[in-house]
Amino acid sequence: MNATRTGRDQRVARCTYYLESEVDPEQAAAALAGEQSSGTFVPVPGETPRIRERHAARVVDVRRLGRGGPSLPSRTHPDQVTRAVATIEFPMENFGTDLATLQTTVAGNLFELGGLFACRLEDIDLPEDFITAHRGPAFGITGTRRLMGGVEGVMVGTIVKPNVGLSEDEFRTAVRELARSSIDLIKDDELMTDPAYLPLAKRVAVATEEIRAAEQITGHPTMYAFNITGDLAGLRRRHDEVVEAGGRCVMLNVPIMGLPAVAWLREFSAVPIHGHRAGLAGVMRSPALGMSYRVWQRLARLAGADHLHVSGLGSKFYERDEEVAANVRSLLEPLGDTLGPVPTLSSGQNVSTPAPTFAATGSTDLLMLAGGGVAGHPDGPAAGVRSLRTAWRAAVDGVPLQQAARDAATGGDPALLHAVHGLEGGA
Amino acid sequence: MNATRTGRDQRVARCTYYLESEVDPEQAAAALAGEQSSGTFVPVPGETPRIRERHAARVVDVRRLGRGGPSLPSRTHPDQVTRAVATIEFPMENFGTDLATLQTTVAGNLFELGGLFACRLEDIDLPEDFITAHRGPAFGITGTRRLMGGVEGVMVGTIVKPNVGLSEDEFRTAVRELARSSIDLIKDDELMTDPAYLPLAKRVAVATEEIRAAEQITGHPTMYAFNITGDLAGLRRRHDEVVEAGGRCVMLNVPIMGLPAVAWLREFSAVPIHGHRAGLAGVMRSPALGMSYRVWQRLARLAGADHLHVSGLGSKFYERDEEVAANVRSLLEPLGDTLGPVPTLSSGQNVSTPAPTFAATGSTDLLMLAGGGVAGHPDGPAAGVRSLRTAWRAAVDGVPLQQAARDAATGGDPALLHAVHGLEGGA
Repeated sequence: MNATRTGRDQRVARCTYYLESEVDPEQAAAALAGEQSSGTFVPVPGETPRIRERHAARVVDVRRLGRGGPSLPSRTHPDQVTRAVATIEFPMENFGTDLATLQTTVAGNLFELGGLFACRLEDIDLPEDFITAHRGPAFGITGTRRLMGGVEGVMVGTIVKPNVGLSEDEFRTAVRELARSSIDLIKDDELMTDPAYLPLAKRVAVATEEIRAAEQITGHPTMYAFNITGDLAGLRRRHDEVVEAGGRCVMLNVPIMGLPAVAWLREFSAVPIHGHRAGLAGVMRSPALGMSYRVWQRLARLAGADHLHVSGLGSKFYERDEEVAANVRSLLEPLGDTLGPVPTLSSGQNVSTPAPTFAATGSTDLLMLAGGGVAGHPDGPAAGVRSLRTAWRAAVDGVPLQQAARDAATGGDPALLHAVHGLEGGA
Repeated sequence: MNATRTGRDQRVARCTYYLESEVDPEQAAAALAGEQSSGTFVPVPGETPRIRERHAARVVDVRRLGRGGPSLPSRTHPDQVTRAVATIEFPMENFGTDLATLQTTVAGNLFELGGLFACRLEDIDLPEDFITAHRGPAFGITGTRRLMGGVEGVMVGTIVKPNVGLSEDEFRTAVRELARSSIDLIKDDELMTDPAYLPLAKRVAVATEEIRAAEQITGHPTMYAFNITGDLAGLRRRHDEVVEAGGRCVMLNVPIMGLPAVAWLREFSAVPIHGHRAGLAGVMRSPALGMSYRVWQRLARLAGADHLHVSGLGSKFYERDEEVAANVRSLLEPLGDTLGPVPTLSSGQNVSTPAPTFAATGSTDLLMLAGGGVAGHPDGPAAGVRSLRTAWRAAVDGVPLQQAARDAATGGDPALLHAVHGLEGGA
């Protein structure tokens, strides 16, 4: 190992890759490092010692994991490859403080390399100078709670359903019901952007009006995450439409818009950025390719996302509960001096999920998005929200759900009891 | 099959997916269609017949491919899954004419679905109204040739190497040598953006000056693709820096910047957009996940990329030659009335690649980027460029490379002969 620069003060991005190669893994890692820094596989004319010293990426560790079949197709078809974890340091001088250039360096052409039969960026440790060059979330957990009227404990939210196709009147009715439930956040579906049949401007007008009216009744300010995903030429206009109408949150489909779009929005957004992860699994789900959630969330946080989706325990999505919990924990880890983003749980969330979620994460700095658990509650959305808040208090207090349901019902609020019965009935 | 809407005039995006599922593939495809349009797995309150009729995605065909092991991990671990190709139509009303919303619809959350053990978007047929809403490349093949002084046949280009770390003087020398070789295009490496040690503005000044000077000698206008990948707030400024200095091309790392960034740049770019594919393999290389090149290139063309990287026959990247040729052919297919983009071959390109490339694609509407084949030619870059042009003429005329080399040497230009000898020597 030619490790001459290590440690955070050395201004390098230290990356951990899972690799598979037919050749010796140290040789494969060196090829990757060369491709992604000062050269190609072979030395090129003009590659001076100065360039090598200051700009070459360095392989600092290679840990072999044994032999196995190749995970990904390539030009050649070896029966067996060597699996390894390689740690490579990329000089910050090459990418400066630019997110897109960093991403090109650590997660760009390297996925194409024919000599690798797996290449996945598992972890990244960024130089402090890089982190401090980015402001991160402008609101994060504390700012989001403040805009929700100082809500304590887990924030409860939901998604307007049906997610597409609602007329203006249907939309108004849906938002009215939800806003009057004292819910903390309502959001657009990721598929709902600015369609001709229910334009964003119309949705903004209706939803902010209904939320204001509901607040007069409930006293609770509900945040609406308006999906401003779409063309970049119109991004600022759509943001302004939300803010000028009194909206308190904008939403972006982060993997589809790209990290530079988040960073740009962060520069002028007056409200928190709700970061959806639609499309992320396309680059994350294969264990042999792409990048881990752990890496992605660091980049998305530096770009400035205030809320980040993590999937949900017990969800209909592919990640196992322990993986979802690890996603949450990665978001709760500090990242320089940036504000902590809100881990956003979604899919399959109901009164049965707080207990395992709290057990696995130990945190209530979470936003839980429940669909059926709110809109589908037998006593209506307000009871749905209450039942979720009660279930969360029980989870934190270590009270079993059934007991908490009976206690609450005895105290005059059968919302949790009915929610539990609903679940048992298979709803 | 509940196929009630088919055909291009029906304003639907028709998508073909490779799927693996534990349940019956028709049921799996229906779940995907529901998730990505009007509903979730279960009917939700408010999902009216009108919404279903107008907004639900429809499964129009499912072709079973037999059983096999699951390709991707999920919450459950079935021993066997059913492999299938499903065709699903998404109503245009849901996504309108917006690229990001289309991408969210056809390549968003669906990759996460736990009930699928593979999900890959293999093909997409877009509604005509969607295609005509996008202008596509502003320059394409014809506009690029014009800016290169009307070059005929395959366009020859190269990448400045070493790709990172060059001082201003070293950069000047490299560009001078290349520009005086009568090459058609010089480009930045995808890793080279706007670093402090050699800022874009400096590179633009030096390269345009050297290219202008060389043109006085050679009479041939060389295009330089300046990599303006980076923060979106500065995108227009960087574009303007290039154009105001007389630059004739800007480059973007498309998968990292996102399609919306290309579409935005297209709105104001005065020069062709050179679309690099760094990072694309992260969402393309797994046969079980993400999307095919065929799909990606359609979206990138509609966004407005004038040149698109396809890898190269005989490259160091993973795609087999027949896959690279299919990439080229997909770019040469018409897409509405949009201009054809320039298929850009790179990696491992030298005098030996024209023959197989022409045999596989039948086209000379190509840009071939050769590194060592230009800068590393024993007689210098000008001989390198000449040898590549001669090799291409031979390929088109069906003349074997060795014979063409001898013919050219007899005619007084040993460039191709020396290039062939160089290859035989293992360079």
